[in-house]
Amino acid sequence: MHNQAAIDELITTLGQRVSQSKSDLELHGRSETHFPDAPPEAVIYPESTEEVAQILRTCHAHRCPVVGWGTGTSLEGHALALKGGVTVDFSRMNKVLDIRADDMDVRVQPGVTREALNHELRATGLFFPVDPGANASLGGMASTRASGTTSVRYGTMRDHVLALEVVTASGQIMRTGSRARKTSAGYDLTGLFVGSEGTLGLITELTLRLHGQPEAISAAICGFDTVEAAVGTTMDAIQMGLAMARIELLDEASVRAVNAYAGSNIPVKPHLLLEFHGSDTMVRETSELFGELAEARGGSGFDWASKPEDRSALWAMRHNAFYAILGLMPGATSMVTDVCVPISRLAETIEETQRDFAAHDVTGPILGHVGDGNFHAILLMHPDDSAARARAHDAAHRLVERALDKGGTATGEHGIGMGKLRYMEREHGHGWAVMGQIKQALDPLGIMNPGKMVPPSNL
Amino acid sequence: MHNQAAIDELITTLGQRVSQSKSDLELHGRSETHFPDAPPEAVIYPESTEEVAQILRTCHAHRCPVVGWGTGTSLEGHALALKGGVTVDFSRMNKVLDIRADDMDVRVQPGVTREALNHELRATGLFFPVDPGANASLGGMASTRASGTTSVRYGTMRDHVLALEVVTASGQIMRTGSRARKTSAGYDLTGLFVGSEGTLGLITELTLRLHGQPEAISAAICGFDTVEAAVGTTMDAIQMGLAMARIELLDEASVRAVNAYAGSNIPVKPHLLLEFHGSDTMVRETSELFGELAEARGGSGFDWASKPEDRSALWAMRHNAFYAILGLMPGATSMVTDVCVPISRLAETIEETQRDFAAHDVTGPILGHVGDGNFHAILLMHPDDSAARARAHDAAHRLVERALDKGGTATGEHGIGMGKLRYMEREHGHGWAVMGQIKQALDPLGIMNPGKMVPPSNL
Repeated sequence: MHNQAAIDELITTLGQRVSQSKSDLELHGRSETHFPDAPPEAVIYPESTEEVAQILRTCHAHRCPVVGWGTGTSLEGHALALKGGVTVDFSRMNKVLDIRADDMDVRVQPGVTREALNHELRATGLFFPVDPGANASLGGMASTRASGTTSVRYGTMRDHVLALEVVTASGQIMRTGSRARKTSAGYDLTGLFVGSEGTLGLITELTLRLHGQPEAISAAICGFDTVEAAVGTTMDAIQMGLAMARIELLDEASVRAVNAYAGSNIPVKPHLLLEFHGSDTMVRETSELFGELAEARGGSGFDWASKPEDRSALWAMRHNAFYAILGLMPGATSMVTDVCVPISRLAETIEETQRDFAAHDVTGPILGHVGDGNFHAILLMHPDDSAARARAHDAAHRLVERALDKGGTATGEHGIGMGKLRYMEREHGHGWAVMGQIKQALDPLGIMNPGKMVPPSNL
Repeated sequence: MHNQAAIDELITTLGQRVSQSKSDLELHGRSETHFPDAPPEAVIYPESTEEVAQILRTCHAHRCPVVGWGTGTSLEGHALALKGGVTVDFSRMNKVLDIRADDMDVRVQPGVTREALNHELRATGLFFPVDPGANASLGGMASTRASGTTSVRYGTMRDHVLALEVVTASGQIMRTGSRARKTSAGYDLTGLFVGSEGTLGLITELTLRLHGQPEAISAAICGFDTVEAAVGTTMDAIQMGLAMARIELLDEASVRAVNAYAGSNIPVKPHLLLEFHGSDTMVRETSELFGELAEARGGSGFDWASKPEDRSALWAMRHNAFYAILGLMPGATSMVTDVCVPISRLAETIEETQRDFAAHDVTGPILGHVGDGNFHAILLMHPDDSAARARAHDAAHRLVERALDKGGTATGEHGIGMGKLRYMEREHGHGWAVMGQIKQALDPLGIMNPGKMVPPSNL
């Protein structure tokens, strides 16, 4: 417990907002997925940037590890305290500070969740579109460069963070970016901190881009005989410039799971779920054009839902797909994979993966943000079946290798955390060493989320 | 000439492609604008990435400064060889390597210009939208994070560079990013090199996003009584989600210049020049909606041009505005400013600037990419009128301070180079020191474009 000196010092200043209770440590030592628990030695609940700076100055002086914590919904064990130390929980820094409707931007503290933000925005005619599924904190979403179902239209967190306030490893408060929509003023520090997973500093404030709520929204579902036809239709639509707000793929196994879960009767074949945003005219035109493209590739059962309740049912189906898939194997645990490839290689990557799973007796329905070339397989296994667990891990490994072979990336949106560290060298080559140099420059003592992101020599 | 040892070594391997001719040195020692000449000691014309790596390994061993050179169209003296050394001219690395229409991306060498790329793309149905005006090289555009008239719709270079090949200061070849449309795999090195102005390494290859050529294009011009009304209409249109491909402002003085240059008869008041891209229906609908918004703010003379020749005339007017403005004062030299502010502060920033110019006897028509909050004043002065030159410099300085006061940035798209270095500390605070730490980590000998971008201790 050589970090106790730092913790004791923090207790003298922050008092009860430094917790060493067993339940707090356990809660912050767990991840949503299959990684072993790794609790911190204390959990701290700061209420201001100045307090975060104080925490980091103290930890820096004592070389005590620091891990940031949003809502704990990471799927790759980002916030596990591998080397102990303190976890900084941002749940009390959860204020929407300033909504600027004229500029369509908002300033928030990092503990605000995306749903809370959209709730605050509901009367403004504006919304924040990035939707990773979980009701994650915006600080966490920035730290992992999250995206989700709407990125095909609106972009990822990278595209939505205009400016940050960050506390550096040594406890200095820094502002990056500005409220200007574009800039050529120096290195893109905002972009560097977005996706840095708490390894360079802690985000204490974000300025985010907003969008106008669309005048009209229309959703649809359409079945295809093959994944290739579904992906091909998606490519056709993107090349025509059709503005799709969402375009999601469910493979046969996912459809089967959804039917069983919801009692629905969707034909068991690959399906696209779509959403269009725009004016009435545009939404109508776009949906008609999409329908023609789908038909040309054998799409069937093309069904539009422009009423809010029908749309909600459709997206509830998509959002519940994870639970529906879990329901395929009662008592199972899951492993969620996440790769992204050039869209021209997407159909073959999915089809090869399906064949691989079948050949190795792995249950893994596939669903994805097909417009981005990003997909997930949800691998199921009984917790005490170590052979099945090994088969799933091997299949997930082959999936990442396959994505890299196709010119893709080991993670489209879930981040590196614990699960993808082993692929960094292959994906980035010398670039991984350069990431280590940056880490070394900005966190020379290695106290920020240690054990993650960079090469072992810089961890 | 302590760099001659490095140059001699490079001559033994690259022969005649290392030039020390007077004309070559002079040509590469000049900028487009008012900065004093600063020629390199040699100009090198590599033909491959491996040659660039060789140049950097040699220069690194001899601590010889290295400056990258695209087409020399920078407006801020980025490529001036302040400390001598060698300039690497990429004009022989000008191949379009691989057009991948299915993925809507392209791999190019850095010496390809944006016009050359679009020429190569003309049969594919695709185009590269970023248009800074000059026919700049794509490597240079990435290095300065360029943008221009179409960024309101398509984004800046930051949004278009998917992947890079870079040679580091020590001569290692590195690939950043991938062809996947999104990724959460580690620090955004691609984003770090975009806009780094050759101070961290040299870009030897780029993978760029492309877009489908729009089915229909329509352009328009519309006059307003005040800058505020023109900007207000722009804000209304953005908030309604109208997809404008271009929306450019000309102030009264710019209109007067254009009229004199082209013999046209446009009413002397602020004007917006617009372009819409989309389907026939969408373009028609969007233009009608925009017309209504403009009318509500007193817009007049709203005139649509959907025929290509009318559109060309309109955009020729915009593209020639610089020369038209120069024509206001025969024999004058110019100073082009470039700031970007939150759009809610744009009208007041422009109006205060106009009043400031008038009060200080400065001639400086204003035009801008109003949808981004980005504008330029073109300050005119007779070359031998040192008092006028001082007034212009002072006014340009106040303009940057004003933009920073409004929450903006010292440069929206032209970059730091020589002209904006003095504002880095005010704009970035501690962030500027962090940029210096990154520079120190990636270029510890300080050979990459020395004298630029980072604090003096890291220059």
